[in-house]
Amino acid sequence: MTRKKITPHQDRLIALLEITRQLTAETELDKLLGLIVSRTTQLLDADRTTLYLLDQEAGELRSKIAEGSMTIRLPVGQGLAGYVAQTGQTINISDVQHDPRHASYFEQLTGYLVTTMLTTPMRDRAGNIIGVIQVLNKRVGAFTAEDEELLTALASSAAIALENARLHTQVQRMLDSLIATLAVMIDARDKEMAGHSQRLTDYAVAIARRLGLSPDRIELIRVAGLLHDVGKIGVPEAILTKTSELAPEEKLVIRDHARLTREILSKVHFSDNLREVPNVAAHHHERLDGSGYPDGLRGEEIPLESRILAVVDVFDALTSHRYYREPVSDQEALAELERDAGVLFDGEVIRVLKELIAEGEIQHD
Amino acid sequence: MTRKKITPHQDRLIALLEITRQLTAETELDKLLGLIVSRTTQLLDADRTTLYLLDQEAGELRSKIAEGSMTIRLPVGQGLAGYVAQTGQTINISDVQHDPRHASYFEQLTGYLVTTMLTTPMRDRAGNIIGVIQVLNKRVGAFTAEDEELLTALASSAAIALENARLHTQVQRMLDSLIATLAVMIDARDKEMAGHSQRLTDYAVAIARRLGLSPDRIELIRVAGLLHDVGKIGVPEAILTKTSELAPEEKLVIRDHARLTREILSKVHFSDNLREVPNVAAHHHERLDGSGYPDGLRGEEIPLESRILAVVDVFDALTSHRYYREPVSDQEALAELERDAGVLFDGEVIRVLKELIAEGEIQHD
Repeated sequence: MTRKKITPHQDRLIALLEITRQLTAETELDKLLGLIVSRTTQLLDADRTTLYLLDQEAGELRSKIAEGSMTIRLPVGQGLAGYVAQTGQTINISDVQHDPRHASYFEQLTGYLVTTMLTTPMRDRAGNIIGVIQVLNKRVGAFTAEDEELLTALASSAAIALENARLHTQVQRMLDSLIATLAVMIDARDKEMAGHSQRLTDYAVAIARRLGLSPDRIELIRVAGLLHDVGKIGVPEAILTKTSELAPEEKLVIRDHARLTREILSKVHFSDNLREVPNVAAHHHERLDGSGYPDGLRGEEIPLESRILAVVDVFDALTSHRYYREPVSDQEALAELERDAGVLFDGEVIRVLKELIAEGEIQHD
Repeated sequence: MTRKKITPHQDRLIALLEITRQLTAETELDKLLGLIVSRTTQLLDADRTTLYLLDQEAGELRSKIAEGSMTIRLPVGQGLAGYVAQTGQTINISDVQHDPRHASYFEQLTGYLVTTMLTTPMRDRAGNIIGVIQVLNKRVGAFTAEDEELLTALASSAAIALENARLHTQVQRMLDSLIATLAVMIDARDKEMAGHSQRLTDYAVAIARRLGLSPDRIELIRVAGLLHDVGKIGVPEAILTKTSELAPEEKLVIRDHARLTREILSKVHFSDNLREVPNVAAHHHERLDGSGYPDGLRGEEIPLESRILAVVDVFDALTSHRYYREPVSDQEALAELERDAGVLFDGEVIRVLKELIAEGEIQHD
């Protein structure tokens, strides 16, 4: 970092600092695990690293990433990693083959011979052991005291990064499952609509992918698709499930669900990439010629995301059973949409839908 | 870190590493901002640090934490911090008073005189400038080239920590608002129930706090309270809003909502601290003597969280308007609950409710 008097130790500290930054920048759990392993091997100038995570309930270590090896399960207390998980000590062994705590079982299976080994625990903020990092076979000589200190520091940074990534993953999963559950709840009010929001979303995402939209826009379509009908909560069941022809005022109440979708969703603090969800969801009943609702938008005034939802919403409606008619086949539904291509519906979206149906990628069952 | 040959520079690198770890361990935005400022001042041996965050849309820097100072707003391009935000350069000035880019305006306001100043941009993962760190008045002499390098490295770690904390805050806000919106949607099906879930939750959280429950348990009660009636989605509106006496089979359908709440919520992947939400929410109609539903639990078999929800659910029902009767006063509702204390409802919870009503902390309006 300074230009003068750079010692090898300083070099390694700077490398450790850079690694720490890389680890904390990675919020995806799987990638993070891989990064911890590869950077440890590199910093310690070793041949391999195995990362074990502790399964508290099972009292077991599981190797999440073992370079060049299978998954290892190790009860706490067994083997060198198990010993470290139990005692919380860092151990540095220069002659593994003669250490009584060594579990040679895996070597016999893999044929990979370990001579030197440095093993240290990872602890969370509260000080609990959450895993073990095990570095194998220093390239030259044995692991030094400096190696021990560097690995301890690295394990500490890795543990924080792991906790952050886990927290992030948990909250994200909670959010995703809550949205999916909400979609199921909305459809559940009307048995004819069961599964509608999820199917519409699957179709829409397939089309968005084929159109080459960015991951952020695909995610926007996914969330807007799942939530496009939340406004139906404001439509009385008596109207929602009516089997005879609807009166004009009842039709107005039904139409109002799109506006209500926007009103309800605008109360959710969507993250930046999802900021347009209320808007995209609200416009799933707009039509190119301006005959749709709630805003009577025309052509490209309608977001592409909403134009996709409009097509798949009708496709799913036609191919599903409804109170007033039997479902039609995918081909018949497509033909019906094609008659209105460019007038009511986006022609390009319909073309891609046709492609995906022909390939069997989209199929109503 | 090593025991031999520790140079002052190594000491500072080790300090920087420790600071980096502290920053990445802090996921709360406000605390993180404070931590960045205090640790920067310390590492750079300076008198003060100001942290500016860039408001992209306004084209403006805003001092989030300026030790010993008011909030400063600075258009990008103006002043030294504005210059750094515009150019992305780190600048190190040993004679601030004679630098033409310096905005002396603030000094005149605050009376704090700056002589030496080191200013560096913070960049996100994508390389965009998200803010500026400005360190003021090195305690001895001017800021060195080593100081510049340390601050650059610190700013880089700080930026990652900031991005992580923001991401976490955003997702958490989205989750919270989605849960609150869901609660409003559930109550909206029956106009007599408007606001019920939110009121019940407010009362329950107040009682939980007074009982001294841990933050995790209070959060569990909060989320379970907001979602306790999701199962009502399965009760037809015709039954939900019926003004005349319910038939026995209609009563069974209504009772089923508690079981349905559990069924629906068990599909949500709650994070570890909220794992009991489906259970706690489902048991809000259990009674101490086993006469409740869905499981007919008795006494302490009913989680304390659910016993709290049971009391405030009835309290809110009694003090709100219902189709079949007028609301009663808080005191009347309390008296009614007290008659069943220890038989149907938790006596301690009712005692705390009484206390909070007496203090005006809980009040139905």
